[in-house]
Amino acid sequence: MFESAKFEHRLDKTAFKALEPSLREDLLNAQFQLIEQSRRSLMVLVHGPDGAGKGAVLNRLYGWLDVRKLQTLTFDMPCADEDRPPMWKYWRELPPFGQIGIMLGSWYHAPLCKRALKQMGRADFMSALEEIQRFEAMLHAEGVSLLKIWLYLDPEEARSRLKALTHGAYQRPVVREWAEFETERERERMEVATEEAARATSTETAPWHVVPAADGEYRDAMAGSLLLEKLRAMAQEPEPAPQPLPPNPTRVPGPLPAFSILSTLDLTQRLDEDQYDAQLARAQSRITRITNGTAFSRAGLVIAFEGSDAAGKSSTIMRLRHALDPRRFRVHPIAAPSDEERARPYLWRFWRHIPAHGRTAIFDRSWYGRVLVERVEGLCGPDDWGRAYGEINDFEGQLTRAGYVVVKFWLAISQEEQARRFEARETIAYKRFKLTPEDWRNREKWPLYEAAVTEMVDRTSTRDAPWTLVEAEDKHFARVKVLRTVADRLEAMLG
Amino acid sequence: MFESAKFEHRLDKTAFKALEPSLREDLLNAQFQLIEQSRRSLMVLVHGPDGAGKGAVLNRLYGWLDVRKLQTLTFDMPCADEDRPPMWKYWRELPPFGQIGIMLGSWYHAPLCKRALKQMGRADFMSALEEIQRFEAMLHAEGVSLLKIWLYLDPEEARSRLKALTHGAYQRPVVREWAEFETERERERMEVATEEAARATSTETAPWHVVPAADGEYRDAMAGSLLLEKLRAMAQEPEPAPQPLPPNPTRVPGPLPAFSILSTLDLTQRLDEDQYDAQLARAQSRITRITNGTAFSRAGLVIAFEGSDAAGKSSTIMRLRHALDPRRFRVHPIAAPSDEERARPYLWRFWRHIPAHGRTAIFDRSWYGRVLVERVEGLCGPDDWGRAYGEINDFEGQLTRAGYVVVKFWLAISQEEQARRFEARETIAYKRFKLTPEDWRNREKWPLYEAAVTEMVDRTSTRDAPWTLVEAEDKHFARVKVLRTVADRLEAMLG
Repeated sequence: MFESAKFEHRLDKTAFKALEPSLREDLLNAQFQLIEQSRRSLMVLVHGPDGAGKGAVLNRLYGWLDVRKLQTLTFDMPCADEDRPPMWKYWRELPPFGQIGIMLGSWYHAPLCKRALKQMGRADFMSALEEIQRFEAMLHAEGVSLLKIWLYLDPEEARSRLKALTHGAYQRPVVREWAEFETERERERMEVATEEAARATSTETAPWHVVPAADGEYRDAMAGSLLLEKLRAMAQEPEPAPQPLPPNPTRVPGPLPAFSILSTLDLTQRLDEDQYDAQLARAQSRITRITNGTAFSRAGLVIAFEGSDAAGKSSTIMRLRHALDPRRFRVHPIAAPSDEERARPYLWRFWRHIPAHGRTAIFDRSWYGRVLVERVEGLCGPDDWGRAYGEINDFEGQLTRAGYVVVKFWLAISQEEQARRFEARETIAYKRFKLTPEDWRNREKWPLYEAAVTEMVDRTSTRDAPWTLVEAEDKHFARVKVLRTVADRLEAMLG
Repeated sequence: MFESAKFEHRLDKTAFKALEPSLREDLLNAQFQLIEQSRRSLMVLVHGPDGAGKGAVLNRLYGWLDVRKLQTLTFDMPCADEDRPPMWKYWRELPPFGQIGIMLGSWYHAPLCKRALKQMGRADFMSALEEIQRFEAMLHAEGVSLLKIWLYLDPEEARSRLKALTHGAYQRPVVREWAEFETERERERMEVATEEAARATSTETAPWHVVPAADGEYRDAMAGSLLLEKLRAMAQEPEPAPQPLPPNPTRVPGPLPAFSILSTLDLTQRLDEDQYDAQLARAQSRITRITNGTAFSRAGLVIAFEGSDAAGKSSTIMRLRHALDPRRFRVHPIAAPSDEERARPYLWRFWRHIPAHGRTAIFDRSWYGRVLVERVEGLCGPDDWGRAYGEINDFEGQLTRAGYVVVKFWLAISQEEQARRFEARETIAYKRFKLTPEDWRNREKWPLYEAAVTEMVDRTSTRDAPWTLVEAEDKHFARVKVLRTVADRLEAMLG
């Protein structure tokens, strides 16, 4: 992959100066189109050995582009474990649509680093690369394009340049990402891993571009040209088509789907008042104990609540609240996204609330909105919600691999019970606010929701993050089942 | 202050049950008004000794209010130093307008903690309280109301309750904020400090309310009533009046103000090409050296660039960029605020970009927008920009006290030079984007900007964060002056 980069590639200064003005103009025009369309963003990954000129390429691009819509995204400590899931910091920094982010130190760093230091076997390394590939495909599908540039410089040459840079008369800042690799063996392993990574993650939508970096002018001109090509390709991409409605199966009128997972639930299950108090207190106590324990300080808890309107989500969350130290958890009610959220991939607004280790996040409605309300109401297209199952499984997989316990509840009630609760809400003054005319209207879509729930549970019940369906006709029964499930899962994972 | 709270205050369970439904209804109605108006937010501070029921009050309010517009804001480690200015974490968590935040562990914790542990003398403690008072006044003026509740419980009683809570059959979570205070002396000092703090920071807009907490029902009913009162008072507050234009002095037509600070500058100063290269490289090297040093890892650098259009901000920032490790600084171009930003006090969108220790933030246009473009264009009222001088001085004071070096530049050119540069931009293809019709229009307001700049420099040049006016008619001269100033300031503060 890097072989052809080893030949000499040069561009003399005069040729570069002649080329530069029109390249700048073209780049700016292409960038303005990106800004104007504001439907995609671009992340430029600049990789390469220390000394190859990562900082110089970055500075050159800053000289050429409109810097008001340009961000540098940099990440430290590739080899260190941090107190959030590894991908969290990358999500946090995603530029909004219309902008370009230039990235030093990307999601490739941790696996490469761990592989070179022999902290990661080959199988794990390959599955980390596979995960990256899926992540990049998700970004592309969700509006974030990638341009991946690998600066190639002969390792000997890179080292001698690094020495020159740090020992000149004037100090210059040097991007040192790989300072940790001291021995010849480590550096060799890094080279092998690099080659493997570049090969395994060169996909059609996000291929690696190897740029010979021995000659500064050639290197910068080529980086600029690649960027120009990418921006032009992005501008050519067709507008996301207006959502075609027919393929959405939930929109097809007709008889109920043959099977609804919710129909399997025994909604007659009940719990007496006195049993309830004792069982609830016991489950709460188990949760309190384990979330105050030391194992939890290296883990985390993420709970998603979904369910019909009036199924009892809020009052169940309240009981969970009583079991948790209020300084170490937060409830996130999910409503319409803000403009900062709308300008980024769908999962961004959930990633931003993923708690640090030792903490709990409770989502009152969650990332499943896409395959529930957004699907049923036609707020997104079949492409979007169809893709979401896989994206969600990857998301939850990243959380569980990072030591987080992910618990997901669907609270189920019958249509009759919902009607009774709506009516009760109408009569109790301090509950009236919970009921809107929309809630009554939504009841007409009950079968559509049943179909969506069934598909959701089928497609996103994973071993590490299974769904728990909760028979919520009796509130006592439901609350105890939810709290026990949380306690069970915590104890199974951390006990 | 706490004397009357020592008498017995009780509410029996029946009376509480009778009162609760109408209190809930009133609270909800008042909260809905807050949500609907969405022009203010409310922060409820709940203080008191461990064991007084802070968590219980919080849970009760969660039971009563619409939780979708309610957040818990909690902060750990009051005594520890963190890697940002102390107020950063509070800014970050400010709820948007329309919402209520309930706060455990507020900005009172650090000074109280340090005072009790004798890490802070009385004078420093009093000036910390004074600073808090100014901060709270700023919040109030910027749309954030405060309700400050102090739960009073006899210290002996609090300790015995704490013991009961942690040693019962079932574990309950306990909010332990003051666990660090082991000795009788420390606890005594804490009581004295608490009394002083409550006294010094009970202002008209944000008084402390002492709530006797021995009886749970009384405590919760009183907390609820105080909240109701506060919400109702907020709803009564008059709409911010439409901005009266006459008092804005920059809008008064007539002769120029007698004095413009910009007229004192000698814009003929120049620097030759060869001197420029050497001097620039030397200044860059100084900046590189000090920002790579160990002292800087406990400090930080915040630079604000202001100046006329085409004064050379971007190209100067570019030279600064070359001196800094790209992984450790970020440039923030300031344009129109997002909706998340508009829903919070003005300075929020700058606080969110304050870097961690060891890092640099460069603002291309800054928080001075309020007293420059927003003032001149009438985008905010005289009350707002008039108040901003003091708010900005407090803001910068907090940064410098936290070890950050704050550097502020005004890049000045003559009107003639600006016209020349605009014309040049029109002819060079890759510079054309920098010029908009608005830029030409803005020239008509030159005298208004001169007056605004003069007042800004007069009122916000502090010892720790002085303005540097830069004669920018010659770009070489300007760049070297800027970089040298940064180097000088860094060396003076950290060298």
